[in-house]
Amino acid sequence: MPYHFQPGKMYRMPTHFGPRTGPRQGADGRKFENKDTPKTTTIAVSFLTNGDQLEALLPERFELTGEPIVTVEASYLTEIEWLAGRGYNILGVSFPATFHGKQDRVTGSFLTVLWENLTDPIITGREELGFAKVYCELPEPVVLRGETHVTASWMGFKFLDVKVNNLRQLSAAETERLALAQTGDGILHYKYMPRTGEWGAADMTYATLTPAATPHRVVKERWVGDGSVQFHIARWEDMPTQYNIVNTFYDLEIKEIRGASVTKTVGGKDLSDQRILR
Amino acid sequence: MPYHFQPGKMYRMPTHFGPRTGPRQGADGRKFENKDTPKTTTIAVSFLTNGDQLEALLPERFELTGEPIVTVEASYLTEIEWLAGRGYNILGVSFPATFHGKQDRVTGSFLTVLWENLTDPIITGREELGFAKVYCELPEPVVLRGETHVTASWMGFKFLDVKVNNLRQLSAAETERLALAQTGDGILHYKYMPRTGEWGAADMTYATLTPAATPHRVVKERWVGDGSVQFHIARWEDMPTQYNIVNTFYDLEIKEIRGASVTKTVGGKDLSDQRILR
Amino acid sequence: MPYHFQPGKMYRMPTHFGPRTGPRQGADGRKFENKDTPKTTTIAVSFLTNGDQLEALLPERFELTGEPIVTVEASYLTEIEWLAGRGYNILGVSFPATFHGKQDRVTGSFLTVLWENLTDPIITGREELGFAKVYCELPEPVVLRGETHVTASWMGFKFLDVKVNNLRQLSAAETERLALAQTGDGILHYKYMPRTGEWGAADMTYATLTPAATPHRVVKERWVGDGSVQFHIARWEDMPTQYNIVNTFYDLEIKEIRGASVTKTVGGKDLSDQRILR
Amino acid sequence: MPYHFQPGKMYRMPTHFGPRTGPRQGADGRKFENKDTPKTTTIAVSFLTNGDQLEALLPERFELTGEPIVTVEASYLTEIEWLAGRGYNILGVSFPATFHGKQDRVTGSFLTVLWENLTDPIITGREELGFAKVYCELPEPVVLRGETHVTASWMGFKFLDVKVNNLRQLSAAETERLALAQTGDGILHYKYMPRTGEWGAADMTYATLTPAATPHRVVKERWVGDGSVQFHIARWEDMPTQYNIVNTFYDLEIKEIRGASVTKTVGGKDLSDQRILR
Repeated sequence: MPYHFQPGKMYRMPTHFGPRTGPRQGADGRKFENKDTPKTTTIAVSFLTNGDQLEALLPERFELTGEPIVTVEASYLTEIEWLAGRGYNILGVSFPATFHGKQDRVTGSFLTVLWENLTDPIITGREELGFAKVYCELPEPVVLRGETHVTASWMGFKFLDVKVNNLRQLSAAETERLALAQTGDGILHYKYMPRTGEWGAADMTYATLTPAATPHRVVKERWVGDGSVQFHIARWEDMPTQYNIVNTFYDLEIKEIRGASVTKTVGGKDLSDQRILR
Repeated sequence: MPYHFQPGKMYRMPTHFGPRTGPRQGADGRKFENKDTPKTTTIAVSFLTNGDQLEALLPERFELTGEPIVTVEASYLTEIEWLAGRGYNILGVSFPATFHGKQDRVTGSFLTVLWENLTDPIITGREELGFAKVYCELPEPVVLRGETHVTASWMGFKFLDVKVNNLRQLSAAETERLALAQTGDGILHYKYMPRTGEWGAADMTYATLTPAATPHRVVKERWVGDGSVQFHIARWEDMPTQYNIVNTFYDLEIKEIRGASVTKTVGGKDLSDQRILR
Repeated sequence: MPYHFQPGKMYRMPTHFGPRTGPRQGADGRKFENKDTPKTTTIAVSFLTNGDQLEALLPERFELTGEPIVTVEASYLTEIEWLAGRGYNILGVSFPATFHGKQDRVTGSFLTVLWENLTDPIITGREELGFAKVYCELPEPVVLRGETHVTASWMGFKFLDVKVNNLRQLSAAETERLALAQTGDGILHYKYMPRTGEWGAADMTYATLTPAATPHRVVKERWVGDGSVQFHIARWEDMPTQYNIVNTFYDLEIKEIRGASVTKTVGGKDLSDQRILR
Repeated sequence: MPYHFQPGKMYRMPTHFGPRTGPRQGADGRKFENKDTPKTTTIAVSFLTNGDQLEALLPERFELTGEPIVTVEASYLTEIEWLAGRGYNILGVSFPATFHGKQDRVTGSFLTVLWENLTDPIITGREELGFAKVYCELPEPVVLRGETHVTASWMGFKFLDVKVNNLRQLSAAETERLALAQTGDGILHYKYMPRTGEWGAADMTYATLTPAATPHRVVKERWVGDGSVQFHIARWEDMPTQYNIVNTFYDLEIKEIRGASVTKTVGGKDLSDQRILR
């Protein structure tokens, strides 16, 4: 007798072995509170670029908002409860944009791509949330004589160097003010799932939102300083599944660096408040 | 100005950087012929189990066909053209089943799960084809004194040992006969994509088929012999995203080994003939 | 014209490319101060065992000192200056012993083996210092619901689990007292280098000492609690170069756990004070 | 009671757990025949350079012999019996030289450095044999549209590209002639072990020889064609333990490519015939 899906339970492929556990569904259907964990170190550098270059990266109904500032942000996570205490690393590229839907009008950070170095969250993030996650290698940052150096590669081809230096630690008061600063409505995504056999058609496309509110996230320490971002041009042979992503960033004009920081936080959320924008 | 999707081109997330290259779409829109490459070594062991245990793994409209024989099959691929000449490894667990649709009635090998050790084909396989691919580590087989030993692990937890030994090479005539043997209509899958924010609901579900015909695949050499399969029980802490997959296989009764083999092939196909079953 | 060795410079194989850089010799002959870096997190568990079992592990002129207490200690290092800011991880097993030489009589911690997950320090440590370093995989500890879990494996075979829990942070005063506590004369080693072609003979053997004084090492935080140590029995097939090391530890009776801790330190030394014991 | 060394048994650090197993000593003291295994694929490219540049790499009593031709050779080994059936990869750079000792006068291939991607054979090779082995990452070659591409990197920094193409398979007769061709007396090495605490002094230095005879090695297939070698310049920050090795090769003039090949062999030897040159 075939199995039936259990109502209210979350599934991903393979669906044949019962509900699939992940960030939003634990072994016994339990939720993960994301309080005190995970522990995250984030290295971010922003730069001013051409608005035209960014607008060309926006799907329909999205528009660039405010100054054309791109943020490249690498985060190194440990003690992730849904991974039973393991960690992984992520690298995102985003800029401010507004979604104009029939019902929704939201402004936030448009996440063009999020590299991660572990497949399991890539799958859940793409399919459940609509995050544009792909894989790369993200080794621990190298810290030498006051400079923190982030690298990212794909099967040995290094496509990114990010460096921050001249760091100055913020006071507790400065850090607190910063944690309260509003960063818009949240993170904007564009979900797309292809249709099998009808190549070029989609099963489904829609914009999604990660609402900004994350009450369990606490900023513990923050440093600000100088930084740099350098993407490296890739041939199809170097990155046959991602070369045009990297080359688009390589082509972005860097007019001016607009801030570099290192931030340590604890806590987060399970993103079960992710929703479709209409 | 936002971008528009190019008609007839294949996309996956992120869609913002142009059509995404992959197994069925090269850098210039070219196709990959899969002739003479990839080169594949496959180690397979089959065993007789309880039909009841297998039926519980079938979605609606599928039924077990013939004897309840499970095949565990690890393949090690090199010279993959769409990866610009790189390789990766895969591990599947399947058994014979029939799909009874409104239009289609096909019999083949039901692929319950396919582990792979590289994220890029996992994403394309899940989203474009409906393969139930997940990640694991698949190191090269260990070959010692006539025994070939396959292992699979997830973040360091070894969940499978497969061994084959007492191998005898088939003659060219035997190998050729075997290559011509009909193995049904192809490989059966069940595609499922969750809907963001409506947890427990799906954007889309359907069965898909990988048709059997693969004219460019050539069997070069084949050995047959004895073998064994052992899955290892996993706690949620060991494999927080996959423990119930592995434990389902651990629980399968192994009544009798039904064949073990090592096969070397060249060539394949791009699976652009994958289709939805209705 | 052949090259000549530069006087006063340190060499290792290959000697043909000039002095070899490493922990005690930088690019321009510079020294590394090891002040403020590296940053180290150490997880340690000690247990009482049989003195007879430990005495069998001592070379001539060494004897067991005090209670037969074995310490298993895993350290995770980052920001290592001689590696240009990279990190690596180490795992040692030691117990208290005294060396009775013709000139020297020193008491300290006898380091039976030190696993490391990077080859470069393994080579320098063995050849320059006489540390009994060998390789293993040492992934970052897993931290879940108050328990820190250390694992070690060799080519996929997990040979050790160490767990610490019920941790209580020491006060600043307690931590300081502890940093000042005398731990003997230092770390004791037994260096052995085989002679090529005269199999079973040695080019050179001698005991060496890492003196205890490390003025630049600062203990920043320390937690104490409960813990456990479990080595896993290995076949030659599992660890063909190390099975008898692991099995010796597996065979040690664990009479009682004698302390578990997590310690965060900064700073160290370049070990250029390492010396031969006579 | 302290342990004593067992006469006639081979030891390496740590010596406390009994004789250490390795390529020349199995679990029960057994020898490894190296017949039919390992299986090896070797990719080699040679080039003509300046004799002066090579002479500067020779220790005392060595001299360059014949034309100044450097060979860069990457081998990918599987089914290694002393590793219980596992494999690893190696990369050597050598040129022809003669050793003029008091007793010995031998001509062969001077192996300046041998990178390997596994620590265990690096340790045995350095200490027992005097091979100048160091660590690097050596992923499987990439094979695309008739070109085989070898890369080598250290902690993510790619320092070498070797490519071979336009390959033509030799006939069985040609392959056999080639296997019989005399390549000199063997492989020449210079062993050096530093003395602890007397920085700059050595415990022992001597030249060693790997005699050419390897009766169990059988050449199965060979292709010859065109090729290229490119080392990449490294900063201390990129390869803090090896930058001057790589930069020496980067600086070598490549006057002319002198042959490129791919060779598949089975069998080898345990190198227990390695001997000191006097």
